[in-house]
Amino acid sequence: MSEAEEIETAQAANTAFYHAVAEGDYPAMAQLWATTVPVVCVHPGAPALHGLREVTQSWRVILADPPGLTHSSSRVAIVRGLAFVTCLEHIGNRTLAASNIFVWEDRDWRLVLHQAGELPPLDTETSTAGNRLH
Amino acid sequence: MSEAEEIETAQAANTAFYHAVAEGDYPAMAQLWATTVPVVCVHPGAPALHGLREVTQSWRVILADPPGLTHSSSRVAIVRGLAFVTCLEHIGNRTLAASNIFVWEDRDWRLVLHQAGELPPLDTETSTAGNRLH
Repeated sequence: MSEAEEIETAQAANTAFYHAVAEGDYPAMAQLWATTVPVVCVHPGAPALHGLREVTQSWRVILADPPGLTHSSSRVAIVRGLAFVTCLEHIGNRTLAASNIFVWEDRDWRLVLHQAGELPPLDTETSTAGNRLH
Repeated sequence: MSEAEEIETAQAANTAFYHAVAEGDYPAMAQLWATTVPVVCVHPGAPALHGLREVTQSWRVILADPPGLTHSSSRVAIVRGLAFVTCLEHIGNRTLAASNIFVWEDRDWRLVLHQAGELPPLDTETSTAGNRLH
């Protein structure tokens, strides 16, 4: 697969991830995570979850009441055969910055890490608060 | 290098990262980032920064007034030769969840991705607010 194809298929995997979230499709979500490497998921405002069982269980709970999430501005880099995808997530008028990292496994891209963190609202003076932390 | 050695040296690289933050040591920080692969940094409450120049410039600004940050609970997994480190960051009474991903480059671990997001205070009813987003 050329790097252009790797990028295109990783974009598709990232879209499939957000489709599963939007649809509350737990089986599709569970299928998207890697099974042969350790996986990590850092939901906004929460500590890291480790391991397939803990990660998929968190999504089972979340997808029982899907958060109405869309995504934009996705960008893919291939690093040593892994796909690093960054994008923005949108829930109502809230925006989050997300990183989704995929490994190639069983002829498809599978998630090894997802982390999302909320951005402050653009229209308040808190909009640069995050940078004060580090 | 055995996987145990990979984990031990990745822990050391992660510690070096936080040492550079605590000391406001910009040259050490700049040295820690990979130069042969695309790098990403997602500061808390901010969108992703892409590329070595943009990422190191953000740290130059931050380290001019070091945030007094410590870390704990670090955990390393080696995934296809990359080191995935998760840990908690502490700034005063604030806690953040961080992911630091390193590639082996030029005989050392170098950062390819850093993302940190703040956890809500434990002593308020907002402590599970993050999970409401997704």
